[in-house]
Amino acid sequence: MTERKMRNRWMILLGALSMASSAFAQTWIWYPGDYEIWLGNQMNNRRTERGAFFPPFWKTDSHYVVVEFSKKINLAEPEEIQIAAEGKYNVKLDGKLQFGMPEKFQLPAGKHSLNIKVWNQATPPAVYVKGKTVKSDASWQVTYEDKEWIDESGKASDTSATIYMDAGSWNFNEAAQRPSAFQLEREPQQPVAQTAQPEGGVLYDFGKETFGFITLKNLSGKGTIALYYGESPEEAKDKAYCETLDKLQLESGRVTDLAINRTSSLDNGASNEYTLENSKAFRYVYVTHDPGVQIGAVSMQYEYLPETYRGSFRSSDEELNRIWEVGAYTMHLTTREFFIDGIKRDRWVWSGDAIQSYLMNYYLFFDSESVKRTIWLLRGKDPVTSHSNTIMDYTFYWFLSVYDYYMYSGDLHFVNQLYPRMQSMMDYVLGRTNKNGMVEGLSGDWVFVDWADGYLDKKGELSFEQILFCRSLETMALCANLTGDKAGQQKYEKLAGALKAKLEPSFWSDQKQAFVHNRVEGKQSDAVTRYANMFAVFFNYMSADKQQATKHSVLLNDSILKITTPYMRFYELEALCALGEQEAVMKEMKAYWGGMLNEGATSFWEKYNPEEKGTEHLAMYGRPYGKSLCHAWGASPIYLLGKYYLGVTPVKEGYKEFAVTPVLGGLKWMEGTVPTPNGDIHVYMDTKTIKVKATEGKGYLTIQSRRQPKANLGKVEKVSEGVWRLWIDSSQERVVNYR
Amino acid sequence: MTERKMRNRWMILLGALSMASSAFAQTWIWYPGDYEIWLGNQMNNRRTERGAFFPPFWKTDSHYVVVEFSKKINLAEPEEIQIAAEGKYNVKLDGKLQFGMPEKFQLPAGKHSLNIKVWNQATPPAVYVKGKTVKSDASWQVTYEDKEWIDESGKASDTSATIYMDAGSWNFNEAAQRPSAFQLEREPQQPVAQTAQPEGGVLYDFGKETFGFITLKNLSGKGTIALYYGESPEEAKDKAYCETLDKLQLESGRVTDLAINRTSSLDNGASNEYTLENSKAFRYVYVTHDPGVQIGAVSMQYEYLPETYRGSFRSSDEELNRIWEVGAYTMHLTTREFFIDGIKRDRWVWSGDAIQSYLMNYYLFFDSESVKRTIWLLRGKDPVTSHSNTIMDYTFYWFLSVYDYYMYSGDLHFVNQLYPRMQSMMDYVLGRTNKNGMVEGLSGDWVFVDWADGYLDKKGELSFEQILFCRSLETMALCANLTGDKAGQQKYEKLAGALKAKLEPSFWSDQKQAFVHNRVEGKQSDAVTRYANMFAVFFNYMSADKQQATKHSVLLNDSILKITTPYMRFYELEALCALGEQEAVMKEMKAYWGGMLNEGATSFWEKYNPEEKGTEHLAMYGRPYGKSLCHAWGASPIYLLGKYYLGVTPVKEGYKEFAVTPVLGGLKWMEGTVPTPNGDIHVYMDTKTIKVKATEGKGYLTIQSRRQPKANLGKVEKVSEGVWRLWIDSSQERVVNYR
Repeated sequence: MTERKMRNRWMILLGALSMASSAFAQTWIWYPGDYEIWLGNQMNNRRTERGAFFPPFWKTDSHYVVVEFSKKINLAEPEEIQIAAEGKYNVKLDGKLQFGMPEKFQLPAGKHSLNIKVWNQATPPAVYVKGKTVKSDASWQVTYEDKEWIDESGKASDTSATIYMDAGSWNFNEAAQRPSAFQLEREPQQPVAQTAQPEGGVLYDFGKETFGFITLKNLSGKGTIALYYGESPEEAKDKAYCETLDKLQLESGRVTDLAINRTSSLDNGASNEYTLENSKAFRYVYVTHDPGVQIGAVSMQYEYLPETYRGSFRSSDEELNRIWEVGAYTMHLTTREFFIDGIKRDRWVWSGDAIQSYLMNYYLFFDSESVKRTIWLLRGKDPVTSHSNTIMDYTFYWFLSVYDYYMYSGDLHFVNQLYPRMQSMMDYVLGRTNKNGMVEGLSGDWVFVDWADGYLDKKGELSFEQILFCRSLETMALCANLTGDKAGQQKYEKLAGALKAKLEPSFWSDQKQAFVHNRVEGKQSDAVTRYANMFAVFFNYMSADKQQATKHSVLLNDSILKITTPYMRFYELEALCALGEQEAVMKEMKAYWGGMLNEGATSFWEKYNPEEKGTEHLAMYGRPYGKSLCHAWGASPIYLLGKYYLGVTPVKEGYKEFAVTPVLGGLKWMEGTVPTPNGDIHVYMDTKTIKVKATEGKGYLTIQSRRQPKANLGKVEKVSEGVWRLWIDSSQERVVNYR
Repeated sequence: MTERKMRNRWMILLGALSMASSAFAQTWIWYPGDYEIWLGNQMNNRRTERGAFFPPFWKTDSHYVVVEFSKKINLAEPEEIQIAAEGKYNVKLDGKLQFGMPEKFQLPAGKHSLNIKVWNQATPPAVYVKGKTVKSDASWQVTYEDKEWIDESGKASDTSATIYMDAGSWNFNEAAQRPSAFQLEREPQQPVAQTAQPEGGVLYDFGKETFGFITLKNLSGKGTIALYYGESPEEAKDKAYCETLDKLQLESGRVTDLAINRTSSLDNGASNEYTLENSKAFRYVYVTHDPGVQIGAVSMQYEYLPETYRGSFRSSDEELNRIWEVGAYTMHLTTREFFIDGIKRDRWVWSGDAIQSYLMNYYLFFDSESVKRTIWLLRGKDPVTSHSNTIMDYTFYWFLSVYDYYMYSGDLHFVNQLYPRMQSMMDYVLGRTNKNGMVEGLSGDWVFVDWADGYLDKKGELSFEQILFCRSLETMALCANLTGDKAGQQKYEKLAGALKAKLEPSFWSDQKQAFVHNRVEGKQSDAVTRYANMFAVFFNYMSADKQQATKHSVLLNDSILKITTPYMRFYELEALCALGEQEAVMKEMKAYWGGMLNEGATSFWEKYNPEEKGTEHLAMYGRPYGKSLCHAWGASPIYLLGKYYLGVTPVKEGYKEFAVTPVLGGLKWMEGTVPTPNGDIHVYMDTKTIKVKATEGKGYLTIQSRRQPKANLGKVEKVSEGVWRLWIDSSQERVVNYR
């Protein structure tokens, strides 16, 4: 399906919407994905390593520099519009160029075409139009090549194949809110402790992992100031190996940031204060300076994306509650302009990390704008020259994340807008398959899987990669269907079916009772790892008996290489939950995430191996403080508790239909809220009672109970032995007694 | 052939060169094509129409925003380098990131890798490195994705498929010469006449077509000033229809340019002077203002690219000499940051216009940098979403121009650098062929051919387009061979051969003794036009007897639709010259270009129909002054006189071997110089003597003479009846007497 066809479909939908209500506020608009890519470049290029600028190693895309915005209008009476633009622009009414770059413009009554064309090399072309009825919003059309040539008589071409998309937007609803000026919020925070060090300098402790800009007050004198940041006191105190640092030169009331060669005057109004230009992640900052320098006080500007904690979880287990809280804080720190991996490192947007953030987000903030921004950025622009972040598995997660988002949000428009780039991304993958129709790591492909404390073979056909590939093809078929691309749907269904049929013959080992790790030149390897087996479980790619077999042969088998990242524990525990092992998973969660808390974690880590001791926990990548101690993928209990204990999931897109299947998993009681697009589902459960209140959508509450449960409303039906269900179709609270 | 393979081949060549001499000066470097595209955006976006910003309607590409520059070095002793960059950057030595953005850096002795990575959204990432031996130049490698991931132990990836290119550069050889600050030269010029107009205002005449920025001196008072530009006095005086204008608001010593809403103070140091920010093309400027405004004087800053007139032509015919001079001036005005079409309109870079500029340039400036810049810009970036400038024929000219450039310059490196983008451009074309392997105008394709004063059918298979397509495939095969892509060479040769074999069966009409214009649904049309026939002649796509037949049935046949653009007259006259009709062409040149001179032209026009009268000559596109009166394609005598009268052409690339075949074409005498890459070929001829002095290269002088000519040096050989040749292998002047 072409972008043009999609537009037509969407216009029909938009028409319906705009008749119903004023569906869109006037807002700054741009080419969809372009602002996201530009803002992502700002984000990804803020990483530093010991004072060096550290950009990503994959292709950094950019915005279309000339974009045309257009709108067909029909006015009952003349109307004046206000126009603001980021870039040099022109205005055309009915094809006629107007003088200059008008900030106000009079539209005549009747049917007209309004076109605004903007050029901007540095930041994405964007416009804001405000009139009584005419206003810039997602119903405007945008293109990067209007192909409006004329012939020698001045007649415009009529064979143009211009591709129009719906304009992209976020929440910049005032003319003065220029998209390129966007910044996160800031709030001053003070250290909770400061300790002069015997060898000189002061170590400041901000009490917990945090993120922002250090402020130095009452600065005077002349000399160098050094700031060494640490997520641990060891890191901050280790001048030679701490991962991030800053160096300043103070002289004559001016400070030069030596990493970026930029000089600025002290803020005299604010008592000779200086705030650093680049933010850092830290709990501790060790500040040293030349003898000629005086520093009055050290504080910080905490930087954050404002988020509402729409999801919640409380239970009878205080350790579990603390795990949820620290998980939520970890998520908040890593939910910024985009969902990033970790705040100290890499401060980049990674697809495999992001898909987990999205899933956690659906149970915490339900911030759809952040999901969409991140998906656009990760995809970037054509041509595709490598896998997402160069990682094969990350490409597949990217596909999966789109359908996840659709299911949680019900946002068909986003799928429509994105689908052409899904197609070209899949074309890239299909162009790299082998004669079996499978993917292998070719030159330039990073086959990642996981960070592991043991050898993971990356050669040949990895069962794990084929499973993700197969799921991606199924996702393409689903999205093709959603966007009306019937031919695409058939093509992807056929490819998915063919690949799925090869999985068991290629990878199942009767002897191992598991999927083996890989196949090299047609030969199954001896290695069995958890990865493929756990994904096969929750994708339902194995028969029920094989699923049960792998539970014992792999998932609960301690001789199989253990997972030491919260990243893959996310899926491992999800697989066990899908097999009904909530009690075992509860113990694992308490041991693993509780283990980090016992080590003093105030946010969750990139990697945690319970067998390590002391400062071993800080090291990674061959560096003593290489590990990120605030990593989004560390927060997975947020997702597991919402999805597999409160048990809330969408059955139809956007929670039009939901499922609530609460499982205590050993807790005495639990309660919590799961947000939905325009409401929420509150669940309380103890050993005798379940209460559910859903403010939108309809769905089944499923109850495990020996006897028939009693409900305050509605009829409890039997599903199978010991399993009952209750249809919920109103926002009134259901109270069910069971046992 | 991949870009990587190309690099390896080039590196061998570079190695050889750098052993021989210091082949490259230190210079600012960038990703090849990126600066050219960025600078082209500046150029293409300066067009205005009556005070409105008027950007192109095709996709505007942009630079890679993160680029890594690298160089392997081997130092006998330590060395300090100076580093300048446009953008935020880091420096890595042997993979280790260095603190900050060092402006000086100490390199240790021995073998090392030096990497500099730069991020810049607004202008192309560029670096300048200057040391005793280490210096940034075209031997540096660049990439937009280095794919340097590490594993959990910190080990760098070894499977990277990073594509490196040789760095791009121009002539920014000092650190202070930042590429993004590039500007053409300026020179103050005064009007030759000024006439107060009865209805108010003053009309200034600058004496001839020119280009630059109007300066107003001794400005005072308050009110509006309007400037109406004209290539003719009629245009300047027509406030309602002149193509370009400016409006200024003067108040309290500050001027606001109302077209761009920018305010600046008068330059008091220069007697309250104001110079406009955007340049314009004009000969006349009509300046009016409110009564409250006083203007002292009006002058201009002429803006130009400095060029050496390496080519020259003088003859016994003064009108012809004037044609050559006005042609050279037309070329100079339109040779700017790029070869543009016209200076008033469109001020854009068009592929069909540019290929003619390149060819004229080889006989005038021999400015290879301008050719390369223009070719890079016209190609833009992948993905290809339309033909070059949206025009099918213009895509084909683009291919042809690359091999032309190679033949005149001998610059194999450029072909190597460009070849991957030639491949993807041809992939686009091949993806749009019909079942006959021919091109037809599909939706979104502009089938241009020419501006014609009569109906040109654009439907179906145009013979003209197939001929250009065939030549493009042949060009691809030649370039594939040059770059060592044997598989590509075979593929393109096969495609070219198959298409060429179809030309006569598809388009030759025995009845018409010509190629017909087009074929629609397999049926030849009745129309015969000049276009396909003349290209078939000088591409040698017809047998000699068919060529002679078309000469009479088409080229010299007045009943065939006449060509009224100098654009297609270029090829029409070239075809006649190729058929030995220099005398007829001389008459045509004098009539046509002499005709423009008689109409008062001071530069040559976009279109000239001798049958039109008075102000009819100014109109085009349905607008009274729509026609450009300074259009590069108007200057073709420059090319024809150099190639077909002085008769100088390269036989092997870069004039390693040349041909000199002078033809007086009715002149009593002529003399001139044709530049070669590092020298020139001077030719003098009268009815009895030919003198040739070539300061580089070797080649044959061909002489038409009834009797055996006599030479001062070397032996004159007989080629055929009345045709003789003399081998020239030194820079000593050859003097040949003939008759």
